[in-house]
Amino acid sequence: MEIKKIGKVKSKYKKPVGPEEMKKSKSIIEIETEYIAGLDQIEDYKYLQIVFYFHKSEGYDLIGKRRKGPARGLFTSRSPRRPSPIGITTVELLKREGAKLYVYGLDAIDGTPVIDIKPYSSFMDQPTGRR
Amino acid sequence: MEIKKIGKVKSKYKKPVGPEEMKKSKSIIEIETEYIAGLDQIEDYKYLQIVFYFHKSEGYDLIGKRRKGPARGLFTSRSPRRPSPIGITTVELLKREGAKLYVYGLDAIDGTPVIDIKPYSSFMDQPTGRR
Repeated sequence: MEIKKIGKVKSKYKKPVGPEEMKKSKSIIEIETEYIAGLDQIEDYKYLQIVFYFHKSEGYDLIGKRRKGPARGLFTSRSPRRPSPIGITTVELLKREGAKLYVYGLDAIDGTPVIDIKPYSSFMDQPTGRR
Repeated sequence: MEIKKIGKVKSKYKKPVGPEEMKKSKSIIEIETEYIAGLDQIEDYKYLQIVFYFHKSEGYDLIGKRRKGPARGLFTSRSPRRPSPIGITTVELLKREGAKLYVYGLDAIDGTPVIDIKPYSSFMDQPTGRR
């Protein structure tokens, strides 16, 4: 299974400080030259899902104490330490300038590799039960 | 960048038939034995984000005609054909039986490798602008 880096995060946070604080900040996503054409008309989308790789994460515990409360399974947590260390966050797109996307609400540290960007889709992403 | 398969999808759909239809169906996610402990207490979560690998997808076009309307950039689309062929869908967890998660709303074909499962988090996943 192959994944590719399409860009990287520029953030004032060089280390994680907790998502509550990080999600209140602006960051820039710099897309690599070969992928810039894929941004065509992205300005029309207010919310994007940013898929990134937790490049500083090492190993994982299948059961462990979580920030909020007692021990539980890894797949009930958003911890960066996981078998596939992928992070996903919905952000607001503030503006685009060429290869740069200015976003609000990205909880990823400076230098984080971005592996995919998708438009937020309420059909795919919103919690809705059986109809 | 390494990603791992943690399980696979069992679905009545052997080929894609469009997300509108597929999202109205139930599927089973079978977690591999070595990762089962990571499911501890997952029954407490009604909505999960399923991260999977589009294993049948080949290549991509940075600009192309999309299902709805004229040509635009790949990163404005949820197409399976992308540099990192990763799919993300929020599903309803109906029940868990051992290694099996019964879910509603997964638009992935039979045999799709699952690479991560996260609890849906309105803080991370809901579109919200600057506060």
